[in-house]
Amino acid sequence: MTLTVETANENVVNTQYAVRGEIVQIAAQLASEGRKIIYCNIGNPQSLGQKPITFFRQVLALCDCPVLLESPEVEKLFPSDAIARARALLAACPGGTGAYSQSKGIQVCREAIARGIEARDGFPSDPNSIFITDGASPGVHMCMKVLLRNDSDAILTPIPQYPLYSATLTLYGGSLAPYYLDESKGWSMGVEELSASIAKARAAGKTVRALVVINPGNPTGQVLSMENQKEIIKFCKDEGLILLADEVYQDNIYAEGKEFNSFKKVLRSMGDEYNSVQLVSFQSTSKGFYGECGRRGGYMEMVGFDDKVGGLMNKIASVNLCSNTAGQILMSLVMEPPKQGDPSYALYSEERDAILSSLKRRAKMIVSCLNSLEGVSCNDAEGAMYAFPSITLPPKAVQAAEALGKKPDVFYCIELLKKTGVCVVAGSGFGQKEGTFHFRTTFLPSEEDFPTIVKGLTEFHEEFMKKYSS
Amino acid sequence: MTLTVETANENVVNTQYAVRGEIVQIAAQLASEGRKIIYCNIGNPQSLGQKPITFFRQVLALCDCPVLLESPEVEKLFPSDAIARARALLAACPGGTGAYSQSKGIQVCREAIARGIEARDGFPSDPNSIFITDGASPGVHMCMKVLLRNDSDAILTPIPQYPLYSATLTLYGGSLAPYYLDESKGWSMGVEELSASIAKARAAGKTVRALVVINPGNPTGQVLSMENQKEIIKFCKDEGLILLADEVYQDNIYAEGKEFNSFKKVLRSMGDEYNSVQLVSFQSTSKGFYGECGRRGGYMEMVGFDDKVGGLMNKIASVNLCSNTAGQILMSLVMEPPKQGDPSYALYSEERDAILSSLKRRAKMIVSCLNSLEGVSCNDAEGAMYAFPSITLPPKAVQAAEALGKKPDVFYCIELLKKTGVCVVAGSGFGQKEGTFHFRTTFLPSEEDFPTIVKGLTEFHEEFMKKYSS
Repeated sequence: MTLTVETANENVVNTQYAVRGEIVQIAAQLASEGRKIIYCNIGNPQSLGQKPITFFRQVLALCDCPVLLESPEVEKLFPSDAIARARALLAACPGGTGAYSQSKGIQVCREAIARGIEARDGFPSDPNSIFITDGASPGVHMCMKVLLRNDSDAILTPIPQYPLYSATLTLYGGSLAPYYLDESKGWSMGVEELSASIAKARAAGKTVRALVVINPGNPTGQVLSMENQKEIIKFCKDEGLILLADEVYQDNIYAEGKEFNSFKKVLRSMGDEYNSVQLVSFQSTSKGFYGECGRRGGYMEMVGFDDKVGGLMNKIASVNLCSNTAGQILMSLVMEPPKQGDPSYALYSEERDAILSSLKRRAKMIVSCLNSLEGVSCNDAEGAMYAFPSITLPPKAVQAAEALGKKPDVFYCIELLKKTGVCVVAGSGFGQKEGTFHFRTTFLPSEEDFPTIVKGLTEFHEEFMKKYSS
Repeated sequence: MTLTVETANENVVNTQYAVRGEIVQIAAQLASEGRKIIYCNIGNPQSLGQKPITFFRQVLALCDCPVLLESPEVEKLFPSDAIARARALLAACPGGTGAYSQSKGIQVCREAIARGIEARDGFPSDPNSIFITDGASPGVHMCMKVLLRNDSDAILTPIPQYPLYSATLTLYGGSLAPYYLDESKGWSMGVEELSASIAKARAAGKTVRALVVINPGNPTGQVLSMENQKEIIKFCKDEGLILLADEVYQDNIYAEGKEFNSFKKVLRSMGDEYNSVQLVSFQSTSKGFYGECGRRGGYMEMVGFDDKVGGLMNKIASVNLCSNTAGQILMSLVMEPPKQGDPSYALYSEERDAILSSLKRRAKMIVSCLNSLEGVSCNDAEGAMYAFPSITLPPKAVQAAEALGKKPDVFYCIELLKKTGVCVVAGSGFGQKEGTFHFRTTFLPSEEDFPTIVKGLTEFHEEFMKKYSS
């Protein structure tokens, strides 16, 4: 029987992934016709001009091409700490970057990541509980694959959410138990809402296995308080849930007075009675100030699982042999960057601070622009890389969308794209309360492009509202 | 409900992947105790001392660290064609290697791969039908995920096979319909056997969806003749099967008079009436003479599928965003290497020929050593990287194994490992005819190590046979 959409696995057919969905395909079409598109659909900083952190790439280049280390010219092109780091990595990897590593990742990279976690949290981290992956997404795939037995197994997932979660739930045949973030309270996470959601899922016969928390939030940008995190951990303990903590924006905090605390740190600070809680924390090279999306580096730290579960994860990892070694090295560099006193420290910290302070300015600019528009309101982007404004669409716009068979927010985003070249993703791709409309935009275009974007968005919105309000 | 082996997805629990299984874990344990282990369990050439192809790594280093291209020193360290290639790649990739690419891969890399396929086959290749993946394995995962709807869907799989196929069939809940390669005829593939196998699967109520062919063979090393390939394609057409062609050893041919012909080429040479046959061809940077395992580069070319199926594949690829960009670039370099007249051509062809001629000598040495042992017979390693000898084990050895709860071939391999440090994989990990025993060994250790390996294997085998034959 040949393969067609009709004879394909229906979970694959039913999977939705809006950040690379319909609107983005229209954008690609327009781009192929010569239109300038500003891609704000996905957190992909380097595609919009952000430069990589120099030290990271120097180490990668030396690990790629070890013959460089033998050349007398190498010291003219590379700082001594990049050379030393590359030598140390290569000495610890028989066969260098061309050899398969252990399935869970190169030992010395896992050790460096564990040291980075310890420095961040002030609590020990075991390199054997770390699995290095090709970006954070494959770690989420692995967890979903292991956890989900059939569609009676449900995962508590925030709405709005990054659609990786809904997509993997559909792909692996589980159920999504939604809980709603409270837009009126800065997208905060209420335990009453979690309790109501789990009760509803259980009443429908579901076994709720895990809770997904994205902190800082995607698409919503909120940063959880430590008090709130403690409540969430207690909820997981009381309800016997595994906590899947998407912490890939841990280095992206912009709001005054807010800070990132990892769930691992909060969990450990709650004392031994919480040692039974099972936690997986995901991190990535793609986000932060480094923005190394294309390199596909990531890891998950598994906390509170027995060795046999580790063995299962290792087996899944084995079937793909290992993640890409350059991404592994990069992940170790992100978690253990140059230190004060190292030759590369000054440049590293200058690059880091420039990117983060610019992101902070851009976050403010986009939110302030959005809040100035009629019928639009947007919470503060406390962290991450996105604004997720609510838009009140006039009834005539809703009718126009329906006449075209489009969801109203999708219609709005397609019109925005066609008029301005700005590509954003409709709120329906992330989930939103019935009757509300949103879109997600990154604030990653370069600062020079911002006035154009702000002007274009403002003019478009005014015109759109005028057209459909009369 | 916490996650334990008892509450995990049972397909994951049931998955077996011997090339990183029990024996390899014992080896890792011995290594941690200070024993020297010679890893012949997996085709991982660089871990055993093979050096990467210089040109490939030069281009990667320049793409990693584009500031090098601005330095006046760069021409002292890099040849002009590596510099030109890196510049061309970076010019075509906004954001360089740090940006997410299109889900199916960087456009110019897919175009280079398509040109490489055309040069290889003499038939056109469409870059849009190429999906670049993190090694070949994720492509196989994607196909299995799309094809398999439930355990009534079966895939015809060779026995012996590379356990990626059995592992992904188990993971995604499909059924394996085995067909046996004929050891007495050099592991050849008979259409009568295929017919018998499909009839048996259908009689058991299975919908047979695809045929896996590994050419050159893994673990068996045979190279199919074009006549045989035509029969196989005709069989797929007649039976409505998708042909999944694992061609990752296409550059590893050692036997005189044998050559690699891709299934795409054979299919196209059969004329338009075969245009309806659906074929997926897998290739990888990990094998060949390049052996770039850790870099996780690979692609699949999809032939004969409609655009909607391409859309499904693209959606699955999207959920992981893209494969690692350095691996994508490397795959394009493998398929479009330096040409005669290019500054790097002489070194490139010297490195290639040295590796391939050494592999050819090592293939001969290992097969000849194995055939000199009592009760061991081994077909010629015509291609790939493995020898897969049959071993006749004395009844007392079988009893000793059973007393330990081990399969006899696993017992033999563990004893070999403990006595000599040589780590191979038991035939039961690949599948073998009931009552026969085999093991798979790579012939990748360096030539200097070969006398030690041959001596160790010979002495071990003589001792083992003596111990259990009396």
